[in-house]
Amino acid sequence: MKAEIYAILEGPVDTNPRARAFNVFMMSLIVLNVTAIILETVPTLRAAYGPLFDRFELISIAIFTAEYIARLWSATSDPRYAESLRGRVRYALTPLALIDLLAIAPFFLALLFPLHLSITRSLRFVRLMRLFKLTRYATPLQTLGSVLRDRRDQLIICLFIVLILLLFTSSTVYLVENQAQPEVFSSIPASMWWGVATLTTVGYGDVYPITPLGRVMGGIIAILGVGIFALPAGILASGFADELDRQRTKRTQICPHCGQAFEDHT
Amino acid sequence: MKAEIYAILEGPVDTNPRARAFNVFMMSLIVLNVTAIILETVPTLRAAYGPLFDRFELISIAIFTAEYIARLWSATSDPRYAESLRGRVRYALTPLALIDLLAIAPFFLALLFPLHLSITRSLRFVRLMRLFKLTRYATPLQTLGSVLRDRRDQLIICLFIVLILLLFTSSTVYLVENQAQPEVFSSIPASMWWGVATLTTVGYGDVYPITPLGRVMGGIIAILGVGIFALPAGILASGFADELDRQRTKRTQICPHCGQAFEDHT
Amino acid sequence: MKAEIYAILEGPVDTNPRARAFNVFMMSLIVLNVTAIILETVPTLRAAYGPLFDRFELISIAIFTAEYIARLWSATSDPRYAESLRGRVRYALTPLALIDLLAIAPFFLALLFPLHLSITRSLRFVRLMRLFKLTRYATPLQTLGSVLRDRRDQLIICLFIVLILLLFTSSTVYLVENQAQPEVFSSIPASMWWGVATLTTVGYGDVYPITPLGRVMGGIIAILGVGIFALPAGILASGFADELDRQRTKRTQICPHCGQAFEDHT
Amino acid sequence: MKAEIYAILEGPVDTNPRARAFNVFMMSLIVLNVTAIILETVPTLRAAYGPLFDRFELISIAIFTAEYIARLWSATSDPRYAESLRGRVRYALTPLALIDLLAIAPFFLALLFPLHLSITRSLRFVRLMRLFKLTRYATPLQTLGSVLRDRRDQLIICLFIVLILLLFTSSTVYLVENQAQPEVFSSIPASMWWGVATLTTVGYGDVYPITPLGRVMGGIIAILGVGIFALPAGILASGFADELDRQRTKRTQICPHCGQAFEDHT
Repeated sequence: MKAEIYAILEGPVDTNPRARAFNVFMMSLIVLNVTAIILETVPTLRAAYGPLFDRFELISIAIFTAEYIARLWSATSDPRYAESLRGRVRYALTPLALIDLLAIAPFFLALLFPLHLSITRSLRFVRLMRLFKLTRYATPLQTLGSVLRDRRDQLIICLFIVLILLLFTSSTVYLVENQAQPEVFSSIPASMWWGVATLTTVGYGDVYPITPLGRVMGGIIAILGVGIFALPAGILASGFADELDRQRTKRTQICPHCGQAFEDHT
Repeated sequence: MKAEIYAILEGPVDTNPRARAFNVFMMSLIVLNVTAIILETVPTLRAAYGPLFDRFELISIAIFTAEYIARLWSATSDPRYAESLRGRVRYALTPLALIDLLAIAPFFLALLFPLHLSITRSLRFVRLMRLFKLTRYATPLQTLGSVLRDRRDQLIICLFIVLILLLFTSSTVYLVENQAQPEVFSSIPASMWWGVATLTTVGYGDVYPITPLGRVMGGIIAILGVGIFALPAGILASGFADELDRQRTKRTQICPHCGQAFEDHT
Repeated sequence: MKAEIYAILEGPVDTNPRARAFNVFMMSLIVLNVTAIILETVPTLRAAYGPLFDRFELISIAIFTAEYIARLWSATSDPRYAESLRGRVRYALTPLALIDLLAIAPFFLALLFPLHLSITRSLRFVRLMRLFKLTRYATPLQTLGSVLRDRRDQLIICLFIVLILLLFTSSTVYLVENQAQPEVFSSIPASMWWGVATLTTVGYGDVYPITPLGRVMGGIIAILGVGIFALPAGILASGFADELDRQRTKRTQICPHCGQAFEDHT
Repeated sequence: MKAEIYAILEGPVDTNPRARAFNVFMMSLIVLNVTAIILETVPTLRAAYGPLFDRFELISIAIFTAEYIARLWSATSDPRYAESLRGRVRYALTPLALIDLLAIAPFFLALLFPLHLSITRSLRFVRLMRLFKLTRYATPLQTLGSVLRDRRDQLIICLFIVLILLLFTSSTVYLVENQAQPEVFSSIPASMWWGVATLTTVGYGDVYPITPLGRVMGGIIAILGVGIFALPAGILASGFADELDRQRTKRTQICPHCGQAFEDHT
């Protein structure tokens, strides 16, 4: 029976209809949970349906806790986690099991210890981590993860360049604008808020140079810098395209002379 | 005669000069219609030329209705819709025929039932759907459609990632800024308005973090998130490039060993 | 002598040192002219150096006029424009000669006819067309021109899609926001100003939806639409990359087995 | 001993553990320095920890000066800079040595000459040039440098086009909006601030057209121009991708005819 439960919890969805049903149920529950957490922050909804939110939270916690215990208990069916204690500890330390724990821990922490209000507040948002429970079921997040892993080096290089560019441009505009707008460009860190808003092209409009020299510098920075800030986006896009291509197709070429197919590894 | 009318309405434009003339006339009428609907919303134009707009609308409805009836009537000339009733019903349910119906339906609905004013208002805009009648004649919309169909899976994956990123960043900034700006970051859904404006780099400037921690978080989110929000754009662009390439050229390779050319169907 | 002057004016720069010197002089004069026209619009500079600007303008006009007459006179040295009158007329109708005429025409028009002030004002800016005289000398503008010509069809398709998207999104937000902000979203054309600012991600922040429904619609439009508005940019970028590649290199592959080079036409 | 010091200062990091330790120390010191320079501009931090910042600056200057002298002194160990005086001068003129000098020069300049306050202020920021000392150690900046060098011609072409586009669009909107907003669009240079903010899609919202004609022109400019302003970004992105690819992989092709692998040096 333990093996059967393990098969439902972790088994392949394609061949096991009960595992499939369980997966659909869990995904729906997670989506409902996240929706509830978000809607709960709307004051009018909180006031009107507060007890409903709380009850749904309690039921969810009960199900997620039961799921977590069932996973821990049945993990020993898997040859990889066969040993009674050490196997379960190792299972509990896998990323997916840690996410499962994180989804229920805040509730029990708040229950056990009389915490400061602002910490409880923050703990509430850790509940949003439940969204990551979807990783178990949803491929898009896995795709994103493997792109980030694959292009890690390139992204770090680009973020390093982006950071240095941000420092220099923000310092330059601080130097030029500080005397005209001492409140807004009060320090280099404050100017970096302008730098981020400009170089990502968000441009809220709360901070911008007003002196002629500041505008000339700001304009040059915008024209030249925007392209460099777009580098991580370009790397992500090409990494994503590669990953999706890899998942979808392998290019096969057919030599028209001998008629034989061969895979094109370019 | 029925077959001849069908040929004018649906026939190939290249060989049938009357079908060509009809197409040009219909495209002009659609463009004029859409222009009229748009200009009609300008209060001064509405006040000055109101009766003119109404008369043009009536004439257009008459032509579009005649066109729709002629299409339904002559559809049986096509072997696919040969049966008198069932053939016509099947024809009426094709996407292009439904668009034709949608273009005239609001008028007759408003005529038949005494509707509430706000519904009449909305129905007026359904008239803009007439623009989609252009699909029958204009290839750009067909190109866009086939790109969206071709990359559907990839776009859904990206939109899923975009949605999760939006949720997390908006929740984070809500948590940080809520106490400093309880009016603006009043709830997670309200913060999502900030999230969309920032991550798409629109940045209206009506909502932005003001606390130091909020700006640090906002800056990090902008630098890292903008690249992920650009993923759908990248997929669309590459899908479009592929589609246009496919329409335009076939790659030809020349084997360097025997000197013979062959088409590369990759 | 006529042939010699023609060689200086139109001749190949690489082999003729006098043509080279003339080219450098003309490019400098054009750049100075454009700089003067721009600086002249700054009220303080206009007040301080008005007569200087006017004198420089007169000298420039004299030189440009002399150049234009010399070109027309010597054009018959070219076999293509050999006939005395018809040859010169045909030369005068080439795009580059028309630009040369446009650079001096406003001055003589204003001289000959007592024009209305606002027309004189506009004519002043036609002087900026002198910048296009650079086309004769500068390759970047020629590169841009050939990219635009090469991708014309694709760009038209994308602009058509962009226009339709703009119409639909602006109408939608007009319908939703009109009652809450009758001043700002006063008509569909007025809403299109919001549409352009949002979909190009400029986001000035003078116009944005304020109702919850308007924000939801606006957010969805921004996330989905930004990618479509980026299509022309993608086409231009790839067209540019292709054009620059074509100018720079032809890929040559060397087969490692027989040692012979062949050009890779992929 | 001189050769040994040179090996530590300039030697290959992989094989020399002492050179490695020195590198790590210098990189940490540079990062700390830049952090200090940035934080020092925050008034509250400056007031609270002023003497600490000054002491850290003195220690840093001492170490950087000692490093610079040691480099100059030991440079003659390198066969390239073997001659006692001329070798050292040539070493001192290498870009990396100039950066080293620039990192300490402001301090000694301010010490030797009683300078005007605003110059001292500017000199303080030259200290930020210390960040470029990282070039010696960090590959990302070298990567960026080689991309910029590799695509220099293309970038110059694009910047030229961008500049001309900026001139024309700013002049057009100036002509249209000047009378409605004489304060904001006061001259073409002032309108260029609008042009940069719009065409880079930053859109602060401090300047935008308000007349109907200005909005139509502005909208057309935004839709068409944004794509051209994105050209440098596209060139940088593709240059970066190429450079990173070159660093990471060499494409290997397998000839389908003889089954032998060969490296594709395209």
